[in-house]
Amino acid sequence: MTRFRFAPIPAALPATVPFTGPETLEARRGAPFRARLGANENGFGPSPLAIAAMARAASEVWKYGDPDSHDLRHALARHHGTAPENIMLGEGIDGLLGLLVRLMVAPGQGVVTSDGAYPTFNYHVAGFGGVLHKVPYLDDAEDPSALTRAARETGARLVYLANPDNPMGSWHPGTRITAMLDDLPASSLLVLDEAYAEFAPDDAIPRIDPEDARAIRFRTFSKAYAMAGARVGYAIGPAELIAGFDRIRNHFGLNRIGQAGALAALEDQDWLAHIRAQVAHARTRIGAIAQENGLTPLPSATNFVAIDCGRDGAHARRVLAALDAEGIFARMPGVAPMDRCIRVSCGPGAELDAFAEALPRALKAAG
Amino acid sequence: MTRFRFAPIPAALPATVPFTGPETLEARRGAPFRARLGANENGFGPSPLAIAAMARAASEVWKYGDPDSHDLRHALARHHGTAPENIMLGEGIDGLLGLLVRLMVAPGQGVVTSDGAYPTFNYHVAGFGGVLHKVPYLDDAEDPSALTRAARETGARLVYLANPDNPMGSWHPGTRITAMLDDLPASSLLVLDEAYAEFAPDDAIPRIDPEDARAIRFRTFSKAYAMAGARVGYAIGPAELIAGFDRIRNHFGLNRIGQAGALAALEDQDWLAHIRAQVAHARTRIGAIAQENGLTPLPSATNFVAIDCGRDGAHARRVLAALDAEGIFARMPGVAPMDRCIRVSCGPGAELDAFAEALPRALKAAG
Repeated sequence: MTRFRFAPIPAALPATVPFTGPETLEARRGAPFRARLGANENGFGPSPLAIAAMARAASEVWKYGDPDSHDLRHALARHHGTAPENIMLGEGIDGLLGLLVRLMVAPGQGVVTSDGAYPTFNYHVAGFGGVLHKVPYLDDAEDPSALTRAARETGARLVYLANPDNPMGSWHPGTRITAMLDDLPASSLLVLDEAYAEFAPDDAIPRIDPEDARAIRFRTFSKAYAMAGARVGYAIGPAELIAGFDRIRNHFGLNRIGQAGALAALEDQDWLAHIRAQVAHARTRIGAIAQENGLTPLPSATNFVAIDCGRDGAHARRVLAALDAEGIFARMPGVAPMDRCIRVSCGPGAELDAFAEALPRALKAAG
Repeated sequence: MTRFRFAPIPAALPATVPFTGPETLEARRGAPFRARLGANENGFGPSPLAIAAMARAASEVWKYGDPDSHDLRHALARHHGTAPENIMLGEGIDGLLGLLVRLMVAPGQGVVTSDGAYPTFNYHVAGFGGVLHKVPYLDDAEDPSALTRAARETGARLVYLANPDNPMGSWHPGTRITAMLDDLPASSLLVLDEAYAEFAPDDAIPRIDPEDARAIRFRTFSKAYAMAGARVGYAIGPAELIAGFDRIRNHFGLNRIGQAGALAALEDQDWLAHIRAQVAHARTRIGAIAQENGLTPLPSATNFVAIDCGRDGAHARRVLAALDAEGIFARMPGVAPMDRCIRVSCGPGAELDAFAEALPRALKAAG
């Protein structure tokens, strides 16, 4: 209770946050982390051309960013072989997911996701009074059949699926996603979160006509382009749906420096290829470190690896706490049975060295 | 109508935007503007220390921004002599206003503002299903007495007042604002938009205890700090109200480079003093240009001047269109009788030279 009479929906919400940032964790532990491997950030860094573009844009920051993101939106349209009207830029996928829920879900209407999938999506659904229906993961992967079934049973307005998945790193072939579209009820829109798409095998990316009214996809510059702090994400979908965002979005919300950096990053596909190679190398290394410690790395199509610690959630939480005490920032899935794992992001060699050095002690401390 | 079944509130909204950006206007006219004087941007530019901090932060943009904005929030608390718990950072005042409306206004509840005041606030009220009650300006200023009366009559949840005012540049003494607080009904929260506060005389800034439950104030790095493109604004208010934002905000929405730049800008108060002097000089110059052309500049406590063109809104719109044809980006109030004016932002000498050169021809073209 507060002295303030909040509107009914926010009044009923908890004052929780989906994720505690590493800076806050560092303040709590009283020392900086040696390795920042918890938020699936990309420590290999953005394209030098993007850094240069952002540095140049800094002196022009007295200007608002273009609210239509004309140049970036057109470049993305060319990149994806679609029309600019099929692209909506926003303050990260997080911001766009909030807008989508607000646009499509009236209070009391149903939304389907997987139990253990992206918490920030759930946060937005609750935030706008939607009713969340969760289906279990199957074999450490989101389950398109169960999602579709739940959508039919509940008449859900939205069905969330991340492919590749976070937090497990698993993925489905694109054909499985397009088959899912054919099974979805007409009342449901597929929310396809492809934040990690650039790390995935080509055949994990479904071919979906941007004007297909059954789906909206989300991409970001936060992961493969290593620009999480720039807050630039985008949606690809039918022009009529994309235009709907203009009814409710913060039109001048996208910062100018981020727009300039994203445009330069997109044009440097050689750097993206370099990043892909670095991440693949780090993924292998994280797997090897896990195995050297008797743990099982799960296959991943992302820039992180879920490591099966071989016991239950309580044990994995102890491992995570012990890693934190060692100065290693990692995270873990929140829901059983996936919470037998810890989740370690791909990072540069020195950070993985620190992880390799700390893990045996952390496992010992966890007992 | 669309193929998409939007939720009822967004379904009823127009697909309009509060402001068309200058980049879009430039695309329409097929040439860049010679002078960018329409959005109250600050062409004198940000502190060189802020530019340097942003350039440095660009190479660290692979990290998410701190979702708690710890360093910037604490620095702002010191700057304003309040506690960090009284400060909420957000993606510009625009973003924070949207969150405030969402937090405080249930669909159908009333909100009071002035007819002709900031359109983006109205956009958010409509966007969350609030009912807007508008009172007229009095003598080219927002009218605290009329706002208070309307709040009593309608039981409004929020009462918006910008001091200094945009688009007219007028202002009230701080004592008038604190007196208004005493008159407001208990159901109403004063939304005090102080985007232009740093340009105003000291006595225009009311003394309000941050824990005073009757008001929330908004400040920004977009205007005096010349960082509109960085998207960093903040609210100052009671800790319980500020904590409410954590229920609904996009926690990772504030970009990292903007946070770093804002912190450096705040620490360079010498630059702010330099900006104030430059803006005061430009304000005088804009006034002189207006008078040389037989027009009347209105007094201003902001970084723009409303110029009374001496006739009606249709005439002022013709002047604005003629300025646009001359390559001068300016804007104007949207509501009579203020729409007898055009609004010209303070900018560097070369841009004001271009305005001075174009205005006689624009007036002639307007007839």
